[in-house]
Amino acid sequence: MKISGKAYRTLWLGEDGWSIDIIDQTRLPHEFEILKLRSVGDAVRAISAMQVRGAPLIGVTAAYGMALAMHEDQSDASLDAAYGALLSARPTAMNLRWALDEMRTRLAPLEVGERATAAYARAGKIADEDVEICRRIGANGLPLIEEIAARKNGAAVNVLTHCNAGWLATVDWGTATAPIYMAHDKGIPVHVWVDETRPRNQGAALTAFELGQHGVPHTIITDNAGGHLMRRGEVDLCIVGTDRTTAAGDVCNKIGTYLKALAAHDNGVPFYVALPGPTIDWTIDDGDDIPIEERDGDEVSHVSGRTAAGNIESVQITAPGSPVANYAFDVTPARLVTGLITERGICDASKLALAALYPEESA
Amino acid sequence: MKISGKAYRTLWLGEDGWSIDIIDQTRLPHEFEILKLRSVGDAVRAISAMQVRGAPLIGVTAAYGMALAMHEDQSDASLDAAYGALLSARPTAMNLRWALDEMRTRLAPLEVGERATAAYARAGKIADEDVEICRRIGANGLPLIEEIAARKNGAAVNVLTHCNAGWLATVDWGTATAPIYMAHDKGIPVHVWVDETRPRNQGAALTAFELGQHGVPHTIITDNAGGHLMRRGEVDLCIVGTDRTTAAGDVCNKIGTYLKALAAHDNGVPFYVALPGPTIDWTIDDGDDIPIEERDGDEVSHVSGRTAAGNIESVQITAPGSPVANYAFDVTPARLVTGLITERGICDASKLALAALYPEESA
Repeated sequence: MKISGKAYRTLWLGEDGWSIDIIDQTRLPHEFEILKLRSVGDAVRAISAMQVRGAPLIGVTAAYGMALAMHEDQSDASLDAAYGALLSARPTAMNLRWALDEMRTRLAPLEVGERATAAYARAGKIADEDVEICRRIGANGLPLIEEIAARKNGAAVNVLTHCNAGWLATVDWGTATAPIYMAHDKGIPVHVWVDETRPRNQGAALTAFELGQHGVPHTIITDNAGGHLMRRGEVDLCIVGTDRTTAAGDVCNKIGTYLKALAAHDNGVPFYVALPGPTIDWTIDDGDDIPIEERDGDEVSHVSGRTAAGNIESVQITAPGSPVANYAFDVTPARLVTGLITERGICDASKLALAALYPEESA
Repeated sequence: MKISGKAYRTLWLGEDGWSIDIIDQTRLPHEFEILKLRSVGDAVRAISAMQVRGAPLIGVTAAYGMALAMHEDQSDASLDAAYGALLSARPTAMNLRWALDEMRTRLAPLEVGERATAAYARAGKIADEDVEICRRIGANGLPLIEEIAARKNGAAVNVLTHCNAGWLATVDWGTATAPIYMAHDKGIPVHVWVDETRPRNQGAALTAFELGQHGVPHTIITDNAGGHLMRRGEVDLCIVGTDRTTAAGDVCNKIGTYLKALAAHDNGVPFYVALPGPTIDWTIDDGDDIPIEERDGDEVSHVSGRTAAGNIESVQITAPGSPVANYAFDVTPARLVTGLITERGICDASKLALAALYPEESA
């Protein structure tokens, strides 16, 4: 999507044909900086320091990390070392392991001299596949917005989203944002309510940034405000992303998603979840079986931002010693989800509907 | 209640016998600072800048604001000007208008020379009445906690609260916190989940501060987390305050309250609202008729806290120019409220039950 009028992906092959350029997301929304990765070590650091984040983008960065390793040294030892180093960069990210397994499976059987070229080719294909999945999610979700727009006689369609399921979390388009970008690019008036998404403020920092750069009208609100807006008829549609969806359609997503789903249900607002097929966990039905990560309390007690003097600084908002808990995700039961927007189409959040859409997975 | 072992109210008559001392709540939890109000203008500023906040405390401050006006000039013009200035300091608070009407009704018929003395006397009585109201709310709500404690065999009763309906929002005891303080003081194990309450963080900054100072176990969570905790059975009871409750039991309170009420309802967690009778608006049935204050977007885009160097600083968490909206309150419909804890007892959130409890008001 666009930044200052220029089209970007979140990562791309450098002009030298082998290094990888990324957008340093730790500087957003305050500074737009491009960072060059020249080694597998650079890729590990980019993932672990969250200069790249979002499950799909982490996977693609890891794939290119393997390519960078092969660029330097195509030996078995180099392949194994790169795999191990990248896997440990973010211990819990599922796409990371998937992308690394995919790369190793492709590269290991090859002659040593053929691995670098094959690695760049496969990493590039993984990136392109991610873009295509997101594009299809967008195309499948677009009619939801178009239908509402047709009823609103030119008034903007108000979409509420939570966290960043935007293009910055993927290679391009995003998941929850893909239908929004497509509607906007088609000239349909759209306005997005952006939950700030405490504690890490991915909505205020990332979603608002990317929507603003692409020219999509939006407004940042506190996570507390969505219920009020829905009661007042100010939300036509909710679209969120997901980190993991069960085979029965329970949705694990950033903490607070469940509360918005409840409010949507209470007010008759359609609540959709946009997801790539690979984020469905076919081994679990009940969302309560998904372990919920508890993160460092400092993310709640401290907030990072730009001071009046222009420095990025962290301030403590709690009294020293105040106990803090930091649950990173919650589960929205399938009964509160109007539908799942996938790269294969929209379906009910149910075991039957998901199985029909992904027969090869649910067999 | 206590701060560093010493008993305080949130405001009191200065040693000079006419000025008013308040705790500057905008400095909490980082600094404990006492501020002196010497004029009605000081009182207006204290209310509008939220150096005092919370419906009951706003009412008492406004009453003393009238007294400060009379201290300076006891004329009809001064009385009217003070009434108008104080009334416009915060648009939503029910107690503000109640206290101002009460003061004007008392003072207007008096000889001009008698108004100052009468104003201080009446303001002092309003403050004392507020303490007594909160004490009774505590006594009436205490059995709710005792009953749960009896079922839990010594395990702590987990109470979730939103915003600050603590003693800092009143003169003493608080409303939602009064039953909690009484349970704790009786030796009943209580633990409080404290919603941080964006955008102004009154939970993280004020409720956690006052609970900590009084020794009540508590944990600060993001506003996003309460639904997850209720799904996991980690909340036994919700108690919140209210800025205005309609004659039919709809509850206007800090933005985000409605979302917690939805989660409580979805999980069978009792959801109580603690309120003094004067916060009931007998002229309105439907909560949607309550105007909702929209505050400055800077409260969302900027967060204030303590830097590593120890300074209180404000940092911007959004990109410059990102549009922001800041709704201060929402309405929780009576159907989601298990009961109202008042100074006269607990009743259903319904027109009939409220009328039975306050026959003189609803006639």
